Amino acid sequence: MLNENEVIENLKLSFPDYIGDDAAVIPQQGEMNYVISKDVLTEDIHFRPSYVDPASLAQKALHVNLSDIAAMGAKPQFVLLGISIPNLHEKYASDFLSHFSKACLDASVVLIGGDTTKSPDKFFMSVTAIGTVKKKYIKYRSTAKPGDLICTIGNLGDAHLGLLAFEKSLSNFEKYKNSYLRPSAKINEGQWLGEQSAITSMMDISDGLYIDLKRLCLASTVQSNIVLENLTPTEEFKAACGSIGVDFREVMLTGGEDYGLLFTVKPESYAMLADKFNQKFGYEIRQVGKLLNGTGISFTEKGNEINLKLKAFSHFGEL
Amino acid sequence: MLNENEVIENLKLSFPDYIGDDAAVIPQQGEMNYVISKDVLTEDIHFRPSYVDPASLAQKALHVNLSDIAAMGAKPQFVLLGISIPNLHEKYASDFLSHFSKACLDASVVLIGGDTTKSPDKFFMSVTAIGTVKKKYIKYRSTAKPGDLICTIGNLGDAHLGLLAFEKSLSNFEKYKNSYLRPSAKINEGQWLGEQSAITSMMDISDGLYIDLKRLCLASTVQSNIVLENLTPTEEFKAACGSIGVDFREVMLTGGEDYGLLFTVKPESYAMLADKFNQKFGYEIRQVGKLLNGTGISFTEKGNEINLKLKAFSHFGEL
Repeated sequence: MLNENEVIENLKLSFPDYIGDDAAVIPQQGEMNYVISKDVLTEDIHFRPSYVDPASLAQKALHVNLSDIAAMGAKPQFVLLGISIPNLHEKYASDFLSHFSKACLDASVVLIGGDTTKSPDKFFMSVTAIGTVKKKYIKYRSTAKPGDLICTIGNLGDAHLGLLAFEKSLSNFEKYKNSYLRPSAKINEGQWLGEQSAITSMMDISDGLYIDLKRLCLASTVQSNIVLENLTPTEEFKAACGSIGVDFREVMLTGGEDYGLLFTVKPESYAMLADKFNQKFGYEIRQVGKLLNGTGISFTEKGNEINLKLKAFSHFGEL
Repeated sequence: MLNENEVIENLKLSFPDYIGDDAAVIPQQGEMNYVISKDVLTEDIHFRPSYVDPASLAQKALHVNLSDIAAMGAKPQFVLLGISIPNLHEKYASDFLSHFSKACLDASVVLIGGDTTKSPDKFFMSVTAIGTVKKKYIKYRSTAKPGDLICTIGNLGDAHLGLLAFEKSLSNFEKYKNSYLRPSAKINEGQWLGEQSAITSMMDISDGLYIDLKRLCLASTVQSNIVLENLTPTEEFKAACGSIGVDFREVMLTGGEDYGLLFTVKPESYAMLADKFNQKFGYEIRQVGKLLNGTGISFTEKGNEINLKLKAFSHFGEL
């Protein structure tokens, strides 16, 4: 089966310098650069109109992309929208377009263009987002070093729990369903983290911590050690996982679509950074482990190595 | 039914300054600007894998966008590709990706990113293209003036004739099928025309001269008079239309997907411009009419007004 990583590796053979981060950097004169990202959302792969209302889909389509821009330390500025609309969903699509405009205004980004076409049956859309960032503040995923601490912001697993609740037609779980339906990109946090010299690498968490951290390790040629007891869920999250019958750690490690940020920090700067972040944004950075020399991801619990088999999230493996 | 023009008009209410040309202008310091375009190509709407080989689809997906960049007078520089791939078409998609890389290299544009996902059944793709142009050379569709001459370059109707030949399973017509399958954006011509101060407006011809000229008239608040005897087909084209049973003028006026350029020229500069163009590119500019005060499109033949009813090409009306 065609695998997204293989696709990217193949494309890299022709274009070695440009592909690999959440957004691509467009060179520009002066101290600022543009960064640009592009995502695709396809009906029945990324969303189902039956349980995603048009307003939520608009928010998600936009913020998935803004998250990529934020992950580079950049400020989102412009957006283009391409959509392919099936006849069956015209009212849905019309509402989606209104809400997409509103979501752009809410996020202070300007919709500058796009393309609207018919689709034979499924709803398809692609958003392109453009942001600006001072060259010296751009963050990449390839620049982490052994010894750096692995940190995340945002909830881990909430969106996946929401998706499971939808798939199993469970009532309640509104908080998690909302996390799945209406992710909110860490735009201000991304810009602030970009400005911190203690941050050695950054990317967003779109496909789950486990697979995204693997990508960071691959790009930076480092190994990740995740300290399992640092994955501290709320009692509510733990109970929700229990009632659905899933392992809370597995959901936190592999659940996709939370759109938090994953970044690495110089260990000597961590305490001060975490403190400043908390003061500024009113919530905690989560330190989940440490980078080592090597490759891949290892897990420890109370100092003991744990052999954890995880199934990575992949669009190509879905459905 | 949701109509593309209505969609754009609605979006303009929220974002009045930015939507309407083939590509959007991204502000930048200095003498250069970036322009950016985004198109969507959907299986069974824009192409059918049964008669479009992966190499041709790659060429088309790329050049449809490069044409938008050329229409602004800009030089294409970067491309992003988003694709949604159904399981059935994996070999096709893999070949498509290789050819898309090659087409980018051939057109001297750099593939800088994108997104690859699964699709439930149909093949979708969206290309974003970015070009650079000196600010003073950017061409818009809203700046034409009454009295200007309406000109085109590129063939009119060839691609549509090719599509008809495919739809009717006709053998021969290879030249027209090739025009449909493998359009080639007028990249060098667009840049050169952008530099000419005699050119008062420009856009590409993607949906057919009739509908695209209507858009130019609307944007510039002018009327177009098309002189029908200036639509001089080759004998071969006329014969091909005859054998398929379609009116050659109608095909030339409404056939989409040729990706030539439509532009308007100050009348006093036309002769010299046409001469310089011919010397540089080795083929003729076609002067098809003149702009007047008013709105809409009128037709004359040997000085007499002709009432021509044309069905405009629309993605939403297709199939």
